Amino acid sequence: MLVRNITFDEVELLEGFWQNRYKLNEEKSIYAVQKRFEESGRFDAMRFLEGNKNVHYYFDSDVAKWIESVAYLLAKNRSEHADLEEFCDTLIKRMKENQREDGYFNSYFQQAEPNKTFTNRNAHELYCAGHIIEAAVAYDKYVGKSELLELAEKYVQYIYRVFVLEKTANFVTCGHEEIKLALFKLYEHTKKDVYKELALFFINQRGNNALDKEQPIHSLKGAQDDEPARLLTKAEGHAVRATYYYTAMADAARITDDIQLKQACDRLFEDIADRKMYVTGGIGSTRYCESFTLAYDLPNLTAYTESCAAIGVMFFAQSMQMLGVNGKYGDLIERVLYNGFLSSTSLDGKSFFYENPLEICRKEKDKQTAVRDEFRTVLPIWQRKELFDCSCCPPNINRFVASIGNLIYSETKEGIYVNQFISSSLRNGFLEQRTSYPNDKEIILSAEKYPYKQIFVRVPAWCETYSFKKNGKNTEAQVKDGYAIFEVGEKFHLEIIFEFSPRFIESNPQVRENAGKVCLVNGPVVYCLEEVDNGADLFALYVDKDEQDFEWEYSSLYGMKTFSCKGIRKIETQGKALYAKTYQKEKLFLKFIPYYCFANRGESDMLVWVNGIEKMF
Amino acid sequence: MLVRNITFDEVELLEGFWQNRYKLNEEKSIYAVQKRFEESGRFDAMRFLEGNKNVHYYFDSDVAKWIESVAYLLAKNRSEHADLEEFCDTLIKRMKENQREDGYFNSYFQQAEPNKTFTNRNAHELYCAGHIIEAAVAYDKYVGKSELLELAEKYVQYIYRVFVLEKTANFVTCGHEEIKLALFKLYEHTKKDVYKELALFFINQRGNNALDKEQPIHSLKGAQDDEPARLLTKAEGHAVRATYYYTAMADAARITDDIQLKQACDRLFEDIADRKMYVTGGIGSTRYCESFTLAYDLPNLTAYTESCAAIGVMFFAQSMQMLGVNGKYGDLIERVLYNGFLSSTSLDGKSFFYENPLEICRKEKDKQTAVRDEFRTVLPIWQRKELFDCSCCPPNINRFVASIGNLIYSETKEGIYVNQFISSSLRNGFLEQRTSYPNDKEIILSAEKYPYKQIFVRVPAWCETYSFKKNGKNTEAQVKDGYAIFEVGEKFHLEIIFEFSPRFIESNPQVRENAGKVCLVNGPVVYCLEEVDNGADLFALYVDKDEQDFEWEYSSLYGMKTFSCKGIRKIETQGKALYAKTYQKEKLFLKFIPYYCFANRGESDMLVWVNGIEKMF
Repeated sequence: MLVRNITFDEVELLEGFWQNRYKLNEEKSIYAVQKRFEESGRFDAMRFLEGNKNVHYYFDSDVAKWIESVAYLLAKNRSEHADLEEFCDTLIKRMKENQREDGYFNSYFQQAEPNKTFTNRNAHELYCAGHIIEAAVAYDKYVGKSELLELAEKYVQYIYRVFVLEKTANFVTCGHEEIKLALFKLYEHTKKDVYKELALFFINQRGNNALDKEQPIHSLKGAQDDEPARLLTKAEGHAVRATYYYTAMADAARITDDIQLKQACDRLFEDIADRKMYVTGGIGSTRYCESFTLAYDLPNLTAYTESCAAIGVMFFAQSMQMLGVNGKYGDLIERVLYNGFLSSTSLDGKSFFYENPLEICRKEKDKQTAVRDEFRTVLPIWQRKELFDCSCCPPNINRFVASIGNLIYSETKEGIYVNQFISSSLRNGFLEQRTSYPNDKEIILSAEKYPYKQIFVRVPAWCETYSFKKNGKNTEAQVKDGYAIFEVGEKFHLEIIFEFSPRFIESNPQVRENAGKVCLVNGPVVYCLEEVDNGADLFALYVDKDEQDFEWEYSSLYGMKTFSCKGIRKIETQGKALYAKTYQKEKLFLKFIPYYCFANRGESDMLVWVNGIEKMF
Repeated sequence: MLVRNITFDEVELLEGFWQNRYKLNEEKSIYAVQKRFEESGRFDAMRFLEGNKNVHYYFDSDVAKWIESVAYLLAKNRSEHADLEEFCDTLIKRMKENQREDGYFNSYFQQAEPNKTFTNRNAHELYCAGHIIEAAVAYDKYVGKSELLELAEKYVQYIYRVFVLEKTANFVTCGHEEIKLALFKLYEHTKKDVYKELALFFINQRGNNALDKEQPIHSLKGAQDDEPARLLTKAEGHAVRATYYYTAMADAARITDDIQLKQACDRLFEDIADRKMYVTGGIGSTRYCESFTLAYDLPNLTAYTESCAAIGVMFFAQSMQMLGVNGKYGDLIERVLYNGFLSSTSLDGKSFFYENPLEICRKEKDKQTAVRDEFRTVLPIWQRKELFDCSCCPPNINRFVASIGNLIYSETKEGIYVNQFISSSLRNGFLEQRTSYPNDKEIILSAEKYPYKQIFVRVPAWCETYSFKKNGKNTEAQVKDGYAIFEVGEKFHLEIIFEFSPRFIESNPQVRENAGKVCLVNGPVVYCLEEVDNGADLFALYVDKDEQDFEWEYSSLYGMKTFSCKGIRKIETQGKALYAKTYQKEKLFLKFIPYYCFANRGESDMLVWVNGIEKMF
């Protein structure tokens, strides 16, 4: 079954949750990042100003992701963003003028270490190249200007020569995995086989003991270089690099029809989704090498869960979807999208998280600093920032939201698959989706000239009760591979209701950190407690796991409902006793806000997994 | 009120819990340590063998503690231990022959770095000196042989000259605090003022910015050198050194009648007992500098809780008791004694823990090793060992058990204070205590020729219900400062019952790590779950906090009762879902064993704080 993910340029966002987010990105985030990149010298580095010393080996990737974001915005609304187009055109012109004659392009190495090109696998040259390729493809495809693509193709030919033909680089497996998926994008855009060949070359080098043993910054496993791609069984190492790698593996499996690669991807997807993903969709349990750890190791306070890893795992799921539609891919994307991805950005669109922890407890930070404890895990920061030294996440968020339309629909010869519930229409006009999801449970799909006989709608894995109306009448639908299948004519009106209400869920008992704890969800949205609403020491609060009686309020700040329910706080009484038969309890109402909205009201403790009392005995 | 702690030489242990432990120490542990010290070259270092390179700067302290232990055994049963006496005599002779003419004595520096004496505050010279002093006092006092005391006094005079008169040492505040309490012991044994003066000199140097800034191995705080003794308010830094320091401060307060020092000691004692002590009596929450951290920071899995720190805090409580009797000192000692101190030694008496964690979860260790995670706290080892590279704990345990009789009674002009419930008689015959405590709740105190009009019996803080019979009749007693006061004649028979039965207790709600968790106690004894009885993944087990229905069995291995009650295990069902509304529960019986008996049946996970369900809603 050939599956095509319908891309954002064929999709129009309509009024609803994501259109708001899209506009925030378009109007605020993109400019916030531009401003900070200008101030931090990132653009100047790409301008190759005489005597500029403010260069860094990841600047190119940051700037390229931002250019890619602009290309996506221009694709949708060119007239509104003439300023951005001109800015990028000028920048690209300067880049092109400074490309080395042999094709090499890297603002850091050309300006700082011209004789050290391709000597250090961890110096991010191929990572930067990959992002320039992605930006180039986007700028050519959606803006219709080919200068950056010419630069990229010339550079890739140079890379091919150095790595494949002359083998003069000091390494063959790059530190960061980005290049491979970018090369597949370039291949699919240009149809030139050499790019596919180069991508496969880089995939096939991994795990063949090719890692330069003289530079073992990461372990082989951490660098995804311990086993050949086709033998991988577990998601390991740097979570962003891993998911970019697995994305390219899935692309390769599809493009070259490689069943072994597909099977490896199936195993890796399952390992992430079933054993290594936080309830928020975050991945990467440790700061150490920003990496995956072992199955069920999901500490909340120290969760690394990088914003870029949230994006990477959604890329992977998107590529998997093209290997065979299954609701589990949309389910995973939904989990990430409304929680660990959205949390990355402040509600004003101007600042960002690099890490997205599931708990903030400032007392724990005190302990760390008070005893200078090198054995205690470093905790994430508590507030979003406008720029990071390593500022990979903000422009990644820019480009992801600018192309959010990529996630909504897939197409096979049988019909359209509705993957995400986002108000939108297909540009060709043959399908329209209207919904206030995830604030509301109703989704309306309508068509006037639908060219297929079937339409497929993902039934979220969390949903126990749903109902459908076709053209005004209740209808049943077979659910297969996570999708409800509807037989339809050219013209139809489908009303879909995925029932949800706030409820507490648990973690798999294998997750040690969450034993005895529950998390509030409402449909796909994970909720949390903040100190600003519930007082300090959130760890001393308890809820009834079987609580049914939630009060809700609509928050205009969040554009979402908040929920309250009764709770208990254990308070220190009995003098100062450290241990006692019991401590006094205080009844109170606990207020839960959407997880992704946390840290928008100043410094505050935060908690996702709350002590949950249940009737077990 | 002058208080004297009655020392072990005036006390005869009678049949019961501690007599067994004493015999195990006398018959097994002392020889196990001797064997390992011989094998590891510790004795040879003290023999100053020609060409010996196997020396280490803490060897002297290890050997001295062991000699001190032998002195205590000889005090009680000289004829049985002629072998040990001869061994020590010979060793002491060699030591004395090798003492430097000027009085300096250190087997490491004399053999390895003769020109570097007193140049490095962290090289443990004064620590070793302190233990030699303690051994010397013991050997003189209880064996009646003064050779080692002569060595020690000559050495101390040299130390006085170098540190106080000539000020030629490179430092004035030593890395380890041992020397001070040892000097007070020497002062109290010899009554020579110079030793008191030197002890006070070392105490008064601390916190006066005297720490050599060129050698800041630990921070000032970690080294107890940030503030003068009299201004201290919080227990900080290395837990063993801290408690040895505080012990000396309490001794100084008593000997010099220093109210400011006493007040500082009161604050420090409260800070430990009410905010920094594990339920097992362990102290020192982190491996980092083996130190205290902040109030209520009591992680279980990574608890450092060194055996020597358990001993140190009991020394501190003993010295505090002499500043004014209060049941809180006996309460604290009892908590440590039956839990975090006893856990240090295997049931066969031959191997020892350095760290005494409150949880063992081998999967957590897997995570640590699997990802080479430098950000993850290093976990303690799971099995006791016969020797450590830094083997301070085993001989410290030897000497502590050999002098366990020190803990039982205090004396004022009003009468005898019964601090601990240990079958024993006072040597002068005027009091006898018979009990199976902590296996049984009954304590019988009897006398034929009691010379006071009152007797004082500590009422444990954990005890809610107690009853007394005097000469066969029920009687009431006033309880003051934690002691029940009985008016008695020359001849009396007191039956005391401290009611206890197994029950779950909680931690103060400020202890984040124990939120929602409970711990089983039976009287003073803390219980735990072991994997070998209850299966793997102890973190997935739940108990009813209000459980009343315990079954018990007598374990001949432990010489103690074990308890069982109903429990729940959450098991992974629902396919492989990471998150779900609920997971299947399995009923089972959980078996609890005394905490101090853990790790005696091979490698096994262990848990003190268990998920506890209670009826809050």
